[in-house]
Amino acid sequence: MTEAVRAALRAQRIELPSWAFGNSGTRFKVFGQRGVPRTPFEKVEDAARVHAFTGVAPTVALHIPWDRVDDYSRLAGFAKELGVGLGTINANVFQDDDYMLGSVTNPDPVVRRKAIDHLLECVDIAGQVGVRDVKLWFSDGTNYPGQDSIRARQDRLAEALQETYDRLGDDQRLLLEYKLFEPAFYTTDVPDWGTAYAHCLRLGPKAQVVIDTGHHAPGTNIEFIVAFLLREGKLGAFDFNSRFYADDDLMVGAADPFQLFRIMHEIVSADALKAEAGVAFMLDQCHNIEPKIPAQIRSVMNVQEATAKALLVDRDALTGAQQAGDVLGANAVLMDAYNTDVRPLLADVRREMGLDPDPVGAYQRSGYTEKIVAGRVGGQQAGWGA
Amino acid sequence: MTEAVRAALRAQRIELPSWAFGNSGTRFKVFGQRGVPRTPFEKVEDAARVHAFTGVAPTVALHIPWDRVDDYSRLAGFAKELGVGLGTINANVFQDDDYMLGSVTNPDPVVRRKAIDHLLECVDIAGQVGVRDVKLWFSDGTNYPGQDSIRARQDRLAEALQETYDRLGDDQRLLLEYKLFEPAFYTTDVPDWGTAYAHCLRLGPKAQVVIDTGHHAPGTNIEFIVAFLLREGKLGAFDFNSRFYADDDLMVGAADPFQLFRIMHEIVSADALKAEAGVAFMLDQCHNIEPKIPAQIRSVMNVQEATAKALLVDRDALTGAQQAGDVLGANAVLMDAYNTDVRPLLADVRREMGLDPDPVGAYQRSGYTEKIVAGRVGGQQAGWGA
Amino acid sequence: MTEAVRAALRAQRIELPSWAFGNSGTRFKVFGQRGVPRTPFEKVEDAARVHAFTGVAPTVALHIPWDRVDDYSRLAGFAKELGVGLGTINANVFQDDDYMLGSVTNPDPVVRRKAIDHLLECVDIAGQVGVRDVKLWFSDGTNYPGQDSIRARQDRLAEALQETYDRLGDDQRLLLEYKLFEPAFYTTDVPDWGTAYAHCLRLGPKAQVVIDTGHHAPGTNIEFIVAFLLREGKLGAFDFNSRFYADDDLMVGAADPFQLFRIMHEIVSADALKAEAGVAFMLDQCHNIEPKIPAQIRSVMNVQEATAKALLVDRDALTGAQQAGDVLGANAVLMDAYNTDVRPLLADVRREMGLDPDPVGAYQRSGYTEKIVAGRVGGQQAGWGA
Amino acid sequence: MTEAVRAALRAQRIELPSWAFGNSGTRFKVFGQRGVPRTPFEKVEDAARVHAFTGVAPTVALHIPWDRVDDYSRLAGFAKELGVGLGTINANVFQDDDYMLGSVTNPDPVVRRKAIDHLLECVDIAGQVGVRDVKLWFSDGTNYPGQDSIRARQDRLAEALQETYDRLGDDQRLLLEYKLFEPAFYTTDVPDWGTAYAHCLRLGPKAQVVIDTGHHAPGTNIEFIVAFLLREGKLGAFDFNSRFYADDDLMVGAADPFQLFRIMHEIVSADALKAEAGVAFMLDQCHNIEPKIPAQIRSVMNVQEATAKALLVDRDALTGAQQAGDVLGANAVLMDAYNTDVRPLLADVRREMGLDPDPVGAYQRSGYTEKIVAGRVGGQQAGWGA
Repeated sequence: MTEAVRAALRAQRIELPSWAFGNSGTRFKVFGQRGVPRTPFEKVEDAARVHAFTGVAPTVALHIPWDRVDDYSRLAGFAKELGVGLGTINANVFQDDDYMLGSVTNPDPVVRRKAIDHLLECVDIAGQVGVRDVKLWFSDGTNYPGQDSIRARQDRLAEALQETYDRLGDDQRLLLEYKLFEPAFYTTDVPDWGTAYAHCLRLGPKAQVVIDTGHHAPGTNIEFIVAFLLREGKLGAFDFNSRFYADDDLMVGAADPFQLFRIMHEIVSADALKAEAGVAFMLDQCHNIEPKIPAQIRSVMNVQEATAKALLVDRDALTGAQQAGDVLGANAVLMDAYNTDVRPLLADVRREMGLDPDPVGAYQRSGYTEKIVAGRVGGQQAGWGA
Repeated sequence: MTEAVRAALRAQRIELPSWAFGNSGTRFKVFGQRGVPRTPFEKVEDAARVHAFTGVAPTVALHIPWDRVDDYSRLAGFAKELGVGLGTINANVFQDDDYMLGSVTNPDPVVRRKAIDHLLECVDIAGQVGVRDVKLWFSDGTNYPGQDSIRARQDRLAEALQETYDRLGDDQRLLLEYKLFEPAFYTTDVPDWGTAYAHCLRLGPKAQVVIDTGHHAPGTNIEFIVAFLLREGKLGAFDFNSRFYADDDLMVGAADPFQLFRIMHEIVSADALKAEAGVAFMLDQCHNIEPKIPAQIRSVMNVQEATAKALLVDRDALTGAQQAGDVLGANAVLMDAYNTDVRPLLADVRREMGLDPDPVGAYQRSGYTEKIVAGRVGGQQAGWGA
Repeated sequence: MTEAVRAALRAQRIELPSWAFGNSGTRFKVFGQRGVPRTPFEKVEDAARVHAFTGVAPTVALHIPWDRVDDYSRLAGFAKELGVGLGTINANVFQDDDYMLGSVTNPDPVVRRKAIDHLLECVDIAGQVGVRDVKLWFSDGTNYPGQDSIRARQDRLAEALQETYDRLGDDQRLLLEYKLFEPAFYTTDVPDWGTAYAHCLRLGPKAQVVIDTGHHAPGTNIEFIVAFLLREGKLGAFDFNSRFYADDDLMVGAADPFQLFRIMHEIVSADALKAEAGVAFMLDQCHNIEPKIPAQIRSVMNVQEATAKALLVDRDALTGAQQAGDVLGANAVLMDAYNTDVRPLLADVRREMGLDPDPVGAYQRSGYTEKIVAGRVGGQQAGWGA
Repeated sequence: MTEAVRAALRAQRIELPSWAFGNSGTRFKVFGQRGVPRTPFEKVEDAARVHAFTGVAPTVALHIPWDRVDDYSRLAGFAKELGVGLGTINANVFQDDDYMLGSVTNPDPVVRRKAIDHLLECVDIAGQVGVRDVKLWFSDGTNYPGQDSIRARQDRLAEALQETYDRLGDDQRLLLEYKLFEPAFYTTDVPDWGTAYAHCLRLGPKAQVVIDTGHHAPGTNIEFIVAFLLREGKLGAFDFNSRFYADDDLMVGAADPFQLFRIMHEIVSADALKAEAGVAFMLDQCHNIEPKIPAQIRSVMNVQEATAKALLVDRDALTGAQQAGDVLGANAVLMDAYNTDVRPLLADVRREMGLDPDPVGAYQRSGYTEKIVAGRVGGQQAGWGA
């Protein structure tokens, strides 16, 4: 069994978000950090470092227009030279002044057209760089009761999704993300998994749901949603992060490592860890106050540790106890795996992959931080606005 | 317009739950009240009083086995004599010792069989008394991570629902209710509208979703769900009540009257108030510390007031402001209706229906409370266990 | 009684926040609006318009450094000419790069010194312009478990508060605001009323607690806190706004008008509406997508309507029903007042005050919006950063 | 260091609740289990088994009147023979019909007198059996806005607490517990730590606050409260359990083991683990569907594991990283301890104490379950009502 676990850990893939390397913050303040990238190329450089030290993060998701470049092939080529590739294309229809009252659900058809055109552009970019997934998250919604028709906005949403779906190539997918609230404070047009699921079902097999672990109401059982969508064949991807309150976007596993383990347990139970299962695992975080590259490395490691524990669950013993109605016994089987210290196992796996067993330490010793702090002086640091 | 509003208010129908007339409480204590019914017949008597004073509550939902009688036709006949009829049949698979680890999702097939047989019995009872709707709520779930397989439980649930669905007569419906938690504390097998919707979609057109207004995570926008399910043609019924924290089961409109108005606004906007729309409006409440009959009367009145306000929304002005992107203007149109005092209008409507304009006062003066307190002495008061 | 109600409504005072007239938004986007002030003087101009049409908003709270000017007396004189005065001084120790890990609770004593110096400056400014209240809100906290010592941060906080308290003039007050989370996502150094209360108690009679209605955990009963702090003599002020999810900062009364009424009912019940009671009523909102001046007018009106309803509660009948243990009766007394349409009463009160009975309409007709849109071209629009 | 950790673990004390051995459930159903105690004596027997296998649970808390006996000295003597002692006396003023509208805060002075008399009785019982702590939890509150005066209820509460406090012996303590909601659904008279703290402060040094880990609003940071109350010298005791939603009363550590660790980290950081610190650690749980004795054993072990991890935190490294503002470094120090598998260490500690290293297994092999299932036939099983 151990070798199977090791093999699964070696084969795991976690996508990095380009924007995690730029500055981020809250509405109160974005604190700039030294050495932060100024361009998509520099973001890719940083992401490549994370992969160099972890070995399981070989792709970088892009955010359009934050990562807009003249020539995406050049960016892809640059990434390839650094040992990584481009990943999911994330559309952004929330930062133009026209989108104040919504993008694809805006009451104004001119604004809707503009927003849909952006979505189509994203599909095209994905096509150009040979990327499978286009991820859509909409900040659309309303702040005040009565502000707009909930139903009319669904009609407009359905229209926009259909047109985007129709543009997809044979091997492409549309990933639809939901979020309870923020930036809209009364209604959000895709607030929960049910809404995303219903739209994806109608669109067809190339439309799948994205679970962002920070986008739920308090008390929501996320692993239930994972299990349910897997059963329905509709789970397309994760945006990993963690939260204590709302969409805090902290490092995955930092706020509730047991929840992350339970999620990975559902993934492993449904045999959905391997690439063929079609579930993409991405980070989507904001390192507002901590240095970004080691935070990404740590996040990758947190996912690895949760995965390793999930792989160690004695599934036969678990099923046996479950079927016998042995509540404490079944829970104990799960907790045995969770309580295991998997860091030695992962250190071994890293050695097998030719990596330093201590990725954070190795990164710190590499001198990369000093290099970018010294080198990236002047220019406009990347952030959510650019 | 006023006459249309009045007509809609006269035509409105709100179903009463037989169990609201029995004792209820919390895990800490069920406080008995004087005059509480001992039998389903006495519950129907009390419900008939609520209808007598409100004129819009002509049916009584039953809960099986709490309302099990030897001869349902006799109960139906008794109700008819009192001017009311029997309504939705509510299945109950959560109070037998066998259901400790679940009913239709129990790992033990013998228990599942027993539970399904009860569901089929409920369909048959509905058939016998000529009632359209059978409502299913499952307390099924788990308390501890690992206790059972989330996915296997969905498989078992789907099987049970299918068998029940197949038993439905041509004019019957299966109403599936969801609930976030309680009595299960880790997973609930139908925790949210998405789960109920997905199952109902698979079952077919005779399966519809029930929204219990107290069954959501904090912060959930219920009127969004109402609007969404109406657009999908999948909203079957409401269980009305209100809550500040969890599933408090207070009188509808007591905790957040503005929310109730927003819900009714979505109903009215979608033209779903009238009977043909197929949305059943029921109360489902626990009058733990207040007298039950006047509490039901008050609850019916609260729904009427929210409905009247929703009917008064100037829909043309609203749509105009929405399409113009006038955030404050659109909100103001809605608030104008909400801020209207509709009690005089409803008093008029009651007079038109030959009723006392003050239902609570009229009930208090009727002497009915004194009669049942004096008459219902001895026996076993009805409650959740009987 | 009516005249007493009218007198109370005429005497009511609601302070406006200068920053509500500048641009605001979320971490995703700040949408600029046309005609937005560029300077503290222009903010005061806009605030004066709100007072001109409502008659009950004669003071403008300042936020330092957003409203820093060379000569506060000049700003005060300018305000006076426009018929308003300067109000509460709000300290801001969350937007300097030095404050990334906290201000007064920062582990670095140099940063703490800088933050405390700012607090002292705010006390001094308040002294210069003859303002009683200095309001402190700290964004201080941590994002990750272990990041800093919860207890050490309390020690540092206590020290900073003491030094600030010691600087207060005889007629000045320190108002301490609490907030559950945001921008800190693991611990916040003043997360709840209990923490603010304990610190204020230790400081002495000139330290009072501020309740911002959007700063609580889901399910918190705010009116309980109001009643409790009034009983303890420790309620200093309100920051009014409303929310559906987190700290949404919507217009007060927009999300839950019944809650606002319940809060005002506690105020009226404790006879704390009048100025002598020492409770300051301020707005603190973000008009992200709606025009700011009419939104402020509407907010003032929402507070007035809730207050009018609270004043209409039949307190004798209420107390009678409460003491008789008449649950439904007592609730009905409260709801009678809430269900009353007080808009005609307030229109009358405005006429008595020589105002247009329709403040929003009168503002719209005044041409002021057109004037500022045309006139305020160029320059840097005010926002949270300036 | 290791020996200090071992010594601390050997010295740790966790009190067991007598009622955890009786039946419990939800308002929907109480499922009976086989072998459940019928008397306080049998509850003590079961508790003694938990201590026999864990070695750190030598006292049993009583709940009056559930555990009322004619002669408490006899019960104490019985316990002593079994190797355990009686612990905290828990008052119960929520299960008499008179308490429907409250106990000590009831509008009716006759009911209040009765409730206070019960509290005094509990102090007396504690005195008789030589127990230090009397714990007060009040279900008092209201279900509907307006039902009663929030402030008047605080006055009544203060009076009752004062009279009870005055009855305390020199070595006795009054422990005041707070709870957000349930069974009251609008206001609770002691809803949060701030309320409990303010009352305890006024009462004096023998009044201390109890934290029940399941009694908070969603998102509340419990370890902050722990740290704050310890700093104020006002943390008297814990009621340990865990929850996903509301007051689920699951096994401590089952829902969020990381939270339990963070709580114990605050305890250890403040040097409050040892008995002299005056913090009592109790379990308060409902084993609705799992067998009760092994569930208690498991719960004790969960607290031990969290404590062991907290003891392993490298406090110098932590403080160093905190003071250096090293966010990731400080978090990593904490997580290193949390990620350690402490089960081998605890197995060793148990061996040192002459215990089986596997308490659950040893209990299962002991034949005790079979013995009580066979022996405890007939009679009335203990539960919350008896």
